[in-house]
Amino acid sequence: MEPFRLEGERLWLLDQTLLPHEERWIEIADAPGMVEAIVHLRVRGAPAIGIAAALGLWLEARRGGAESLRDAARLIRSARPTAANMGWAVDRVLRAAESAGAETWVQAILDEALAIWEEDRAASRAMARWGASFFRDETRFLTHCHTGGLATGGGGTALGVVLELHRSGRDVSVWATETRPLLQGARLTAWELQREGIPVTVVADGAAASLLAGASIQAVIVGADRIAGNGDVANKIGTYPLALAARERGIPFVVVAPTSTCDPECPSGAAIPIEERDPSEVLAFQGIPIAPSGVPARNPAFDVTPAGLVTAIITERGIHRAPHFLFAAVDTESKYR
Amino acid sequence: MEPFRLEGERLWLLDQTLLPHEERWIEIADAPGMVEAIVHLRVRGAPAIGIAAALGLWLEARRGGAESLRDAARLIRSARPTAANMGWAVDRVLRAAESAGAETWVQAILDEALAIWEEDRAASRAMARWGASFFRDETRFLTHCHTGGLATGGGGTALGVVLELHRSGRDVSVWATETRPLLQGARLTAWELQREGIPVTVVADGAAASLLAGASIQAVIVGADRIAGNGDVANKIGTYPLALAARERGIPFVVVAPTSTCDPECPSGAAIPIEERDPSEVLAFQGIPIAPSGVPARNPAFDVTPAGLVTAIITERGIHRAPHFLFAAVDTESKYR
Repeated sequence: MEPFRLEGERLWLLDQTLLPHEERWIEIADAPGMVEAIVHLRVRGAPAIGIAAALGLWLEARRGGAESLRDAARLIRSARPTAANMGWAVDRVLRAAESAGAETWVQAILDEALAIWEEDRAASRAMARWGASFFRDETRFLTHCHTGGLATGGGGTALGVVLELHRSGRDVSVWATETRPLLQGARLTAWELQREGIPVTVVADGAAASLLAGASIQAVIVGADRIAGNGDVANKIGTYPLALAARERGIPFVVVAPTSTCDPECPSGAAIPIEERDPSEVLAFQGIPIAPSGVPARNPAFDVTPAGLVTAIITERGIHRAPHFLFAAVDTESKYR
Repeated sequence: MEPFRLEGERLWLLDQTLLPHEERWIEIADAPGMVEAIVHLRVRGAPAIGIAAALGLWLEARRGGAESLRDAARLIRSARPTAANMGWAVDRVLRAAESAGAETWVQAILDEALAIWEEDRAASRAMARWGASFFRDETRFLTHCHTGGLATGGGGTALGVVLELHRSGRDVSVWATETRPLLQGARLTAWELQREGIPVTVVADGAAASLLAGASIQAVIVGADRIAGNGDVANKIGTYPLALAARERGIPFVVVAPTSTCDPECPSGAAIPIEERDPSEVLAFQGIPIAPSGVPARNPAFDVTPAGLVTAIITERGIHRAPHFLFAAVDTESKYR
């Protein structure tokens, strides 16, 4: 399941805000259109919005000129601050444009965007296999938010591991937290797993910890939006309490993310910019107000899980176990090579 | 703010499912009507549904006879299994009826129901003062679900403590978790605090742990539905992860509940019956489906916070500090006597 469709020179995007009730593809024509889609979460997921950023720059390069590209790069870079993939993709595209000649720079940007997309597909495949080798016995997972194909170039991160286990014949099942305020778990994870024929059960976010305290769940598996150099993980708000509950029960808490989400220059979670979204997302539910008029809300979109709570980080390069994570050699004892 | 109004022989109840958008009082005429209101959470909160149970039995005793009372007692007892107050109130009413003569038993039931109500008001006042003496420096609280006047006979449990601090001139503020699935935090806590002029900020349930990891909040304060003999606390689903996050940060996690919520014969949290409510409460919001059709949900209404995570339990008798809780002498060092 891919979030984009490129038909000749026309780019289409599946509007994820309308799922699971409606599958509507919308055409994106320029960088402002892509920024609108990113800001409103029509496309979301750190790897997917990295690809979206690159494709948005191509749309703008084709339509405008070099100056328009620079403006668009600024606009896109600030659209959502937490995901490392955004700045990473913009940097790659700008470098590709600079290296190209005056005749070829627009094509160079498209080539780079498509390369980012294809590399993400390959990373998803590799993460899925590394993840499947990590979970040798576990079949009952809890996940948060949505990390399937639509959150990436097509393969998924955490959910990609679950799909790989399912396809290899393992009898997997998933508990999906609904993921307030925007319900990516109830809307997207449930939808994607149902399509794949994997049993999925939705729970309120607050119910996850007591489920973890029981015996139903064997592992927590999530994606990431930015991983700091020390292994601290920024991910969808509500991830950190799941890590606390997993440690309490002694079950693995595993993060699956491509290296494009890793930011080794960011020293720790404290330095990760956390996006604060509009309070109305909390104060209303599907557009219906829930709180009394005039009451404020806070709406941080992400939280930080300290590295000490993370059992392993799985990237396309391998399994990075605590406490060394990205700076260690990959796990050479793994079955997968 | 009281959840009931007794006008002569007519009993009215504020329909809490319609708040904060509509204040509608509905008349309850018999036990089945009260059971309907309890099951659908038109009245909720452990102390309030204890009072509701007693009043419901009086309505039935007046209308039917002794046999009708026994049936109603069975019906009410099973309406919501977790709150200790329900069985406790039913037992008290039945004992009062048995002790009374044939001419006076209906009046004896009303007297007992009114006594339960009045004792709860007094317990709320005492808990508020004990709580205010416990929190000598803390002014910034996080709370979960709703524990104000409407959840009790009028005074509140955890929120009653906050109100007491406010009335005594302290500059308190409250972070209220929205409390999915039925949003008692966003709907009721925000409404009651706004009416009292206490600053309140709503957050998604998943955002509470990272707020606790910051410096904004000085204490977590919650109510309870049943407290086991060992100090384990059953409370609204989503309480347990708040206790984990509070311990991680080293801030107090305080439970405020009358002794009518304490069940010393229940050895531990594992023996507390946890109500499982209809999955539709998770899968839809105000009738609008959020998850794909056919996807199941689990909807436990409560979780258990182990005694080891609880800093203190405040009842009308005093402050019971870990690790002895209810079996210890009350805190004699407290300022309040």
